[in-house]
Amino acid sequence: MGLHQSEELESCLAVAVEVAKKAGQIIKDGFHRAKAVEHKGLVDLVTETDKACEDVIFTQLKESFPSHELIGEETASVNGIPVLTDSPTWVIDPLDGTTNFVHSFPFVCVSIGLVIDKVPVVGVVYNPLLDELFTGIKGQGAFLNGQRIHASNQEHIGNGLLATEIGVKRDKQTVDRTSNLINYFLYKVRSLRLSGSCAMNLCGVACGRLDMFYELGFGGPWDVAAGTLILREAGGLVFDPSGGEFDMMSHLVAASNGHLKGALVEGLVAHM
Amino acid sequence: MGLHQSEELESCLAVAVEVAKKAGQIIKDGFHRAKAVEHKGLVDLVTETDKACEDVIFTQLKESFPSHELIGEETASVNGIPVLTDSPTWVIDPLDGTTNFVHSFPFVCVSIGLVIDKVPVVGVVYNPLLDELFTGIKGQGAFLNGQRIHASNQEHIGNGLLATEIGVKRDKQTVDRTSNLINYFLYKVRSLRLSGSCAMNLCGVACGRLDMFYELGFGGPWDVAAGTLILREAGGLVFDPSGGEFDMMSHLVAASNGHLKGALVEGLVAHM
Repeated sequence: MGLHQSEELESCLAVAVEVAKKAGQIIKDGFHRAKAVEHKGLVDLVTETDKACEDVIFTQLKESFPSHELIGEETASVNGIPVLTDSPTWVIDPLDGTTNFVHSFPFVCVSIGLVIDKVPVVGVVYNPLLDELFTGIKGQGAFLNGQRIHASNQEHIGNGLLATEIGVKRDKQTVDRTSNLINYFLYKVRSLRLSGSCAMNLCGVACGRLDMFYELGFGGPWDVAAGTLILREAGGLVFDPSGGEFDMMSHLVAASNGHLKGALVEGLVAHM
Repeated sequence: MGLHQSEELESCLAVAVEVAKKAGQIIKDGFHRAKAVEHKGLVDLVTETDKACEDVIFTQLKESFPSHELIGEETASVNGIPVLTDSPTWVIDPLDGTTNFVHSFPFVCVSIGLVIDKVPVVGVVYNPLLDELFTGIKGQGAFLNGQRIHASNQEHIGNGLLATEIGVKRDKQTVDRTSNLINYFLYKVRSLRLSGSCAMNLCGVACGRLDMFYELGFGGPWDVAAGTLILREAGGLVFDPSGGEFDMMSHLVAASNGHLKGALVEGLVAHM
């Protein structure tokens, strides 16, 4: 395959950055316009822009890497989630933060990850409204707009900023778990942020603007493929909320800087 | 006084915009640098940047309007909150979202309101990272970067995006009320956002990216003087969480578009 060779991953990253910026421009153009919205479910939304972004990304990645597999949120919403094989696979969320986009709330991004042997090796997350481009290659560090980034050094949960998201399920068990966890962490952390994008939250921990993040019930591997690579390359930790190994297909994710995993897992395990 | 005359308010707005942009540049310059942080309390933070911004704003407003009173968050934290009189008074938060600033989380803004006879008549809220300038003059509408803005038309709370903030108090009564309200609203709204700036939340409802907002225990009048004027000029509603008249000095605020006040108040009253 040879794809693990550094220069090949660098050319994969370069193409991913190029298509992320193209998709980002489509998002930015549509951001303040009236949006034609379809409902996927009660609180989940999909827009024409998601689809236009995914088309642009798929077309160029297929052309540049004809032997690679592609998994995208919009395609998966029609065809179901494909099985993730060991083949080089691009895992794509063309517009993470769709509810934000529909409401013109400016935390939205394009997320593109390349996964080989089920391990993310290249990641790009681009927020066109903040003009923030997060990038990473396995073993080579993580970057924001070309500057090396690192997870925070915060060792005390009481000084930590925690992000979470409430997801789309609103049955009593889910809602009670969500609010019980918030109740628990309000006593522990400096403050809490809910800003509506899983990929931006992972990159937020990567660049130290957040110290911890969890989401129980995220949409699919496209939300995390790029962000988890970027976070790990920034010295952060990604794990199952139980503290065990993270599984991209599990819909459960927790993340922290290098110090706060134990404190985060303690609260999550007690309230799952 | 004559200050109610439209051209005089316009010149007040022009000066406020100029100083907000100067302060915004200081915020932007400091945003990604290491910050020297002082603790005001357990989870409340003040930085050198807050102080530098307030100095710039006070100096120019005193020069331009020598007869006007000034109330600023940083000065008040040293001297206590001055009594708000009927005199023309500039009410200033030099950096709303200080915790965000300390963590480099990009929801921060300068908030400058002019209050006459205890009523806000001019408001400027500027987020230098998103380059969003919200402005308003009483009776003349609200604007984002010069474009007229309006609160959303959403009539169904189930399609609404609700913002809140958890504040700095962490006694059991406060924390339980906070999480009980979140539990209640999770069943009602499309989604929930906590992004760490009261003034940006008010402007968020003003431009329709949010549909509702409440904060029980905000810092002081500087958090709301500009934002409530902008929101009302955009067709939104500002009220006490009980549904009664809003009092800038009460530390309690609720806000909605033109339709969702009843649904928001119903939940707040049941859990206060």
